[in-house]
Amino acid sequence: MAETTKPEILVGVDLGGTKILAGVFTPQLKLIQTAKLSTKSDRGFEAVVERIARCVRDAVDEADLNLKQVRGIGIGAPGAVDPDTGDVLFAPNLGWKNSPLKKRLESLLSIPVFTENDCNLATLGVHEIELKGRPRHMIGLFLGTGVGGGLILDGKLFGGFNRTAGEVGHMVLQVGGPKCGCGNNGCFEALASRTAIFREIQKAVKDGQKTVLTEMLGSDLADMKSGDLRKALRRGDKLVEKVVEDAAEYTGIAVANFINVFNPEVIVLGGGVIDALEDEMMSIITETAMDYAMAGTSKGIEILATKLGDNAGIHGGAVLARARTRS
Amino acid sequence: MAETTKPEILVGVDLGGTKILAGVFTPQLKLIQTAKLSTKSDRGFEAVVERIARCVRDAVDEADLNLKQVRGIGIGAPGAVDPDTGDVLFAPNLGWKNSPLKKRLESLLSIPVFTENDCNLATLGVHEIELKGRPRHMIGLFLGTGVGGGLILDGKLFGGFNRTAGEVGHMVLQVGGPKCGCGNNGCFEALASRTAIFREIQKAVKDGQKTVLTEMLGSDLADMKSGDLRKALRRGDKLVEKVVEDAAEYTGIAVANFINVFNPEVIVLGGGVIDALEDEMMSIITETAMDYAMAGTSKGIEILATKLGDNAGIHGGAVLARARTRS
Repeated sequence: MAETTKPEILVGVDLGGTKILAGVFTPQLKLIQTAKLSTKSDRGFEAVVERIARCVRDAVDEADLNLKQVRGIGIGAPGAVDPDTGDVLFAPNLGWKNSPLKKRLESLLSIPVFTENDCNLATLGVHEIELKGRPRHMIGLFLGTGVGGGLILDGKLFGGFNRTAGEVGHMVLQVGGPKCGCGNNGCFEALASRTAIFREIQKAVKDGQKTVLTEMLGSDLADMKSGDLRKALRRGDKLVEKVVEDAAEYTGIAVANFINVFNPEVIVLGGGVIDALEDEMMSIITETAMDYAMAGTSKGIEILATKLGDNAGIHGGAVLARARTRS
Repeated sequence: MAETTKPEILVGVDLGGTKILAGVFTPQLKLIQTAKLSTKSDRGFEAVVERIARCVRDAVDEADLNLKQVRGIGIGAPGAVDPDTGDVLFAPNLGWKNSPLKKRLESLLSIPVFTENDCNLATLGVHEIELKGRPRHMIGLFLGTGVGGGLILDGKLFGGFNRTAGEVGHMVLQVGGPKCGCGNNGCFEALASRTAIFREIQKAVKDGQKTVLTEMLGSDLADMKSGDLRKALRRGDKLVEKVVEDAAEYTGIAVANFINVFNPEVIVLGGGVIDALEDEMMSIITETAMDYAMAGTSKGIEILATKLGDNAGIHGGAVLARARTRS
């Protein structure tokens, strides 16, 4: 057998509740190929791990490379992760509890695997690649089905005492506010996630308010997506405008809370809601945050939307894999 | 002139809106003497600085020491402080703006002076002296006329990008809630400070609710103090009980926000409200925080009231002075 070249390629994986995204990166962290597969979490842990392995193989093969050239895989999972053992401790969207993701994936691929929380990894990707590691203190906020985030302090991902820091979606912004999936009321996630936005629109429609969304999707608003909101806004829909504005204001208040308490240099927003509604939301978020931040706290602080979009997570995966396999 | 001994004594000063507290400490940070003076901020910056100098001289003299034995002074001011220049950038309670506290006090006392925000300094005092520097990540929350705090991350006081981190009192907990002194609504301070508690009691009395406080203080509740609330509670006053419970619940939700977002190992509560009402409030704060913290985030985390009471700030001042004068 011919001598293989030294493994230098890095792979980042973003494991979500509905889809698996894998990205192949050069040693300089340039993305050269992606592959996507549905998660099918109902088939159970082993089946999902096999799908992740397949997704990685597909991406590597598509890039005309082979697995022997891959130095490490960094993977973000939607839940609490133990970065030392690589186990996923708890991922409600996948139905996983104490699942040995690293161990099983390494046995399938024979490549070192490193795991993290998905939003931590997306924050790391934005920090290291998009912002070239510049901000010393940064926070990433990702608005999608839920709201998650990650903290960079002194240039490094911050885990806190139980390595669970960054559960920003469950910061209460409105005591007694709308019910959250976590069981509490008035969490940031219950006010500004896609789920929260859809809930408010559906409630208003039930109350007899008009929206073009019912023309587009039928009166039950089945299969509503963030992109539909953007279409409705471009058609001048007043209801959608109001609900999206409210979500942006809550997000701005959350950002101000972080400026007041943490005082990071950069606050990055991402996730499906921001991807779809950046033009509509970012100016309201920034204006509200500056309004709620205490005098003197916000000077020079940047609030921006990531340009990595859906790929923030895989970028972070590649960063993690490179950092952990550094010789 | 006789050779003086090497200066080893440390002085901590807590500068408040109404009083100045100075403490004399051994090199091992044991408090040996305190002195107190009213601030009289209406007399202006120079007069207050002279009063601080007098308070320091009084404390040192009372301890049978002289100023030449003092190695450094650490002083906490109620507002935004530039720890490099030693200027107080903004202290609304004192009416100060860009006031050269370090420079003026050094010229009066000929001893090196180091400045910090008062709540940062109190947090530092609790961390270094009461908790012997043990927690790697800690938050201090001080409930008095307002609500302030400080962050210890990786064992060090954390300032963030603009050195204003720790403005915990202006974390919004209830969008659209009661008006705060900062101009916003629903801040932690507007829900759980002494000011907020008194406001709720006064509002209820105006609405015709009964309380023993009106017997104790007259119908206008003039000069109400935190200690009066404790007396009323011990007499079984239902109104005061309800208002104090609400404030404790809001505080518990704030603590949960910090557990979810930051995940510190220890959360320390202090300030006049906690000093006076520790027995009544701490169990509600802890229970509410544990209820609102996400599953898995609060394991092993301690929530405690400082035993340093009013002296937390001067302890922090001594810690700061020792750290900055270390040869």
